[in-house]
Amino acid sequence: MENLLIDIKSVNTESDGGLSFFESNKDIPFDIKRIYYIYDVPTEVKRGFHAHKKLRQLLWCPYGHIDILINDGKNIKTYTLDSPKKGLVILKGYWREMIWKKENSVLCVAASDYYNEDDYIRNYEEFLKYAEEGFWNEK
Amino acid sequence: MENLLIDIKSVNTESDGGLSFFESNKDIPFDIKRIYYIYDVPTEVKRGFHAHKKLRQLLWCPYGHIDILINDGKNIKTYTLDSPKKGLVILKGYWREMIWKKENSVLCVAASDYYNEDDYIRNYEEFLKYAEEGFWNEK
Repeated sequence: MENLLIDIKSVNTESDGGLSFFESNKDIPFDIKRIYYIYDVPTEVKRGFHAHKKLRQLLWCPYGHIDILINDGKNIKTYTLDSPKKGLVILKGYWREMIWKKENSVLCVAASDYYNEDDYIRNYEEFLKYAEEGFWNEK
Repeated sequence: MENLLIDIKSVNTESDGGLSFFESNKDIPFDIKRIYYIYDVPTEVKRGFHAHKKLRQLLWCPYGHIDILINDGKNIKTYTLDSPKKGLVILKGYWREMIWKKENSVLCVAASDYYNEDDYIRNYEEFLKYAEEGFWNEK
């Protein structure tokens, strides 16, 4: 799997808290066209359940603990976002499910392109067919 | 003051939480080149204490309550970010101070350009001089 758990650059102080930052096409390998964030999710609720044909994303959790399950059609790998200093780059083609593990956890996402419903694969059988064809390896 | 408190587009559900989103050059009037976020800040601590010569930013608070004091050199206006659905666009030239009002509050910022120390005004007397000259009205 080509998804990348990265350390987000951070400046932390004893008394005033921490600051983490990343820049488009420098710290992550794409433009930032869209930001979205998810909140008020009850503990143990799962969201996601889709893949993208082209979109690339960086996920981070500025507060709380969220587990991200990444599925390439054959294997599922769980990434734990339990620190604001961790980021997960999800490349195109992977099915993702996110599980809220702590009350008030926030998931933020920086996406490489604008919203486009045609880029979503929301049907799991369709995803498996795409995955079988190895579509995420295409340039 | 030209700073704008905006409603961030949101999709909320009863059982699975809420999702808010914005897109560069559509919902906000600039590119998104840099993201940073601030966390683990004790309640009543203030941060900020600077202005930018050119940078524009969108601030949002995905969890908690943070007050943003915006100063144009003559007046100070307080904006309350106490909902993930509120965003504050800060145009160039304004001195800002942020006060953490609730434990574990997170401030996220989408900035129009990469980090550039030369763009910062960190000295308040220097800021007042810039403000006197009305520099934020320049195109």
